[in-house]
Amino acid sequence: MNMLDLIYKKRNGETLKKEEISFFVNAVTNNSVPDYQIAAFLMAVFFQKMNNDETTDLTEAMMNSGEIVSLAKIDGIKVDKHSTGGVGDKTTIALGPMVAACGVPVAKMSGRGLGHTGGTIDKLEAFTGIKTDMSIDAFIQRVNDIQLAVAGQTSNLAPADKKLYALRDVTGTVDNTSLIASSVMSKKLASGADAIVLDVKYGSGAFMKTSVEAEELATLMVTIGKKLNRKIIALVTDMDQPLGYAVGNTLEVIEAINVLKGKGPEDVTHLCVELGAQILVLAKKTDSLPIARNMMKETINNGSALNKLKQFVQLQNGDPGLIDSAEPLLAAKFQHNVLAKESGFVYAINAEHVGKAALTLGAGRITKDSVIDLDVGIVLNKKRGEYVNVNESIAAIHSNDYELISEAEKWIRHAYHFKQEKPEEVEMIQKIIK
Amino acid sequence: MNMLDLIYKKRNGETLKKEEISFFVNAVTNNSVPDYQIAAFLMAVFFQKMNNDETTDLTEAMMNSGEIVSLAKIDGIKVDKHSTGGVGDKTTIALGPMVAACGVPVAKMSGRGLGHTGGTIDKLEAFTGIKTDMSIDAFIQRVNDIQLAVAGQTSNLAPADKKLYALRDVTGTVDNTSLIASSVMSKKLASGADAIVLDVKYGSGAFMKTSVEAEELATLMVTIGKKLNRKIIALVTDMDQPLGYAVGNTLEVIEAINVLKGKGPEDVTHLCVELGAQILVLAKKTDSLPIARNMMKETINNGSALNKLKQFVQLQNGDPGLIDSAEPLLAAKFQHNVLAKESGFVYAINAEHVGKAALTLGAGRITKDSVIDLDVGIVLNKKRGEYVNVNESIAAIHSNDYELISEAEKWIRHAYHFKQEKPEEVEMIQKIIK
Repeated sequence: MNMLDLIYKKRNGETLKKEEISFFVNAVTNNSVPDYQIAAFLMAVFFQKMNNDETTDLTEAMMNSGEIVSLAKIDGIKVDKHSTGGVGDKTTIALGPMVAACGVPVAKMSGRGLGHTGGTIDKLEAFTGIKTDMSIDAFIQRVNDIQLAVAGQTSNLAPADKKLYALRDVTGTVDNTSLIASSVMSKKLASGADAIVLDVKYGSGAFMKTSVEAEELATLMVTIGKKLNRKIIALVTDMDQPLGYAVGNTLEVIEAINVLKGKGPEDVTHLCVELGAQILVLAKKTDSLPIARNMMKETINNGSALNKLKQFVQLQNGDPGLIDSAEPLLAAKFQHNVLAKESGFVYAINAEHVGKAALTLGAGRITKDSVIDLDVGIVLNKKRGEYVNVNESIAAIHSNDYELISEAEKWIRHAYHFKQEKPEEVEMIQKIIK
Repeated sequence: MNMLDLIYKKRNGETLKKEEISFFVNAVTNNSVPDYQIAAFLMAVFFQKMNNDETTDLTEAMMNSGEIVSLAKIDGIKVDKHSTGGVGDKTTIALGPMVAACGVPVAKMSGRGLGHTGGTIDKLEAFTGIKTDMSIDAFIQRVNDIQLAVAGQTSNLAPADKKLYALRDVTGTVDNTSLIASSVMSKKLASGADAIVLDVKYGSGAFMKTSVEAEELATLMVTIGKKLNRKIIALVTDMDQPLGYAVGNTLEVIEAINVLKGKGPEDVTHLCVELGAQILVLAKKTDSLPIARNMMKETINNGSALNKLKQFVQLQNGDPGLIDSAEPLLAAKFQHNVLAKESGFVYAINAEHVGKAALTLGAGRITKDSVIDLDVGIVLNKKRGEYVNVNESIAAIHSNDYELISEAEKWIRHAYHFKQEKPEEVEMIQKIIK
């Protein structure tokens, strides 16, 4: 077996055998094939696609290319949630405590973000002093103690995926469903959960631009999960405008805290309840979704989720001041309102453009080595379907650098589209794939 | 402009502009883009193809990536002939002297071979002592003196093509008509000829397996040549069995000498006359092909072509013994006849397999660093359409190593196919594209 033969086979539209895909992934992991052959192969995959079996084999081989985390020492059914990423997606910060408050263990390994906004680990750093580096034993101990821990991903999780992802990024081979699905699933599966709930987003702020594409990706990931003996379910959700109002790390954490205080944005709260309900069912807390939804809502109403968040933050060395404060002080030096120049209904808010506004201010990373400014970002004041008068504020820019405000404002204005008729309401959850 | 954008454009089926293709070729030449991006781009070209304008732009940019040979100091119209390569193709050795004997300057830059059999430079080394390294001034002087010189290709001819070719070879992107055509034409155009005659071969011994593919390639190369203001014509010729009887360097040179002595194989002689006639017309010696054919035949009949070959060999320091000898001694230690095991008409001779037999014996290079054994090879005794009785010799194996004979014999037997009915005759020249 050699790499050139595999390139020709895939290029000519043949199906690769499990051992051929293993050979490829091993060669990637061991650096025993040159990058130019991997690049040619990836482009051949882009054009000829992979079928479900090939994609599953690729996922499994990448999963096995590094460390496999064992969560066996955690009692109960471990359910992991993964979102394909969006603008203003602070779900994990609120959802983790809600689920843990129902007694389901949440052992979350998370990453840092690249692009638009930070990842969960970045956002958590809004709690001054929080530590997410810990041994796997300490991680497991914490989950057993309080049902909730968040740790940074081990660097040896699916190293073949890391290498392939970096190459895809620079060879125009990112947007292939098989390559995306295997990349996500290999890391999830290596993280040791028994069951997985996926939040696959579509729209202007998501990787998948249409619900059809998102559904295709969701269906493929569910297929892979099942073939590899995991319980798995995927929600296809709307990300055609930012989720909630806040975009930017500390701003989003404050919004997530507000969800747990019962005063969060409706869309974020709704999504947390729905994702959480699916998790409770997979974790066998109940087999009724309506009951599961009520259990989730109850963790907000009775304050148990907020308590869980505080307990978790303190145990991981963080300052819970943001949680305790009724109205946390906004820390960025400048707050600038973007005033509407026309009146009308907000017809669309391009989430990617809002993300770009936040990125401009320093809320996200442009390169791997960028330092995130936790305090900056955007708070939207008007969302899709709301009516705006001339000179009303549509969004507030939170910046630590006065010079950056006008560039951020351009992005915000670019994001907003107005019309005289009210747009139809969009269901947040478009589809459930299981 | 950056390489990733170009990959995406081509991948998405867009047409690249001239300046984009220049950017790419410059980046390849200067090593300013990584090989993995070039590889991804080449695979995208394989799937999305290039149109005639893109292919012409690629050819021109590669031509301009290195030295452009100027043959302006040579009097007359300089016509170059190029063959896409085949098994037993010794045409250049006979054709050069024939054309030169008609007073048309033949300034031939040639390469060494890789695979099946040697290139023209390798074959010429059958004339002991011959020198093909020379300054461009000496080369031009010789052509002006005797109308014929053969020199090794300068290493700086179309360096972008050299780099791309090496990458195509290891990334499964060799067999794309645009990439093949631009590779051939960039080198030809940089070699400085005013007019070009192409011999595009198809069949089991050629790169193009069918006459349809060969015609497509020929048409594209003629289009490129015309767009870049060259006179150009292409013959699509049969290479479904080896050309002539001899395969192997010295054996082929002897056969070429026999052509000039009027006792060469009919197919080789016919092809030389036809290619030469096209050259004479392009060089404006006559505008009548029938007259041109007669002129070519006359160089054989009156011995002027043989004299020209001898003059050329001597001037380039070679020993003309092979030319003078009526029946040159065959130099390989062992001559082994392959006897037919069945009777019947030779229905097909897979030229590639005969090439493999010769390669086994050491007549060609397996890697760039292989040393060729000039004396070894195969002499076919029966060609397509001939009747063979059991135990008649179908081919003779000329080897310097007894151990290699059985492997070569396997390839020969593998090459020959017999049937009881006589196969239809195949026209050597299938098509003329101009």
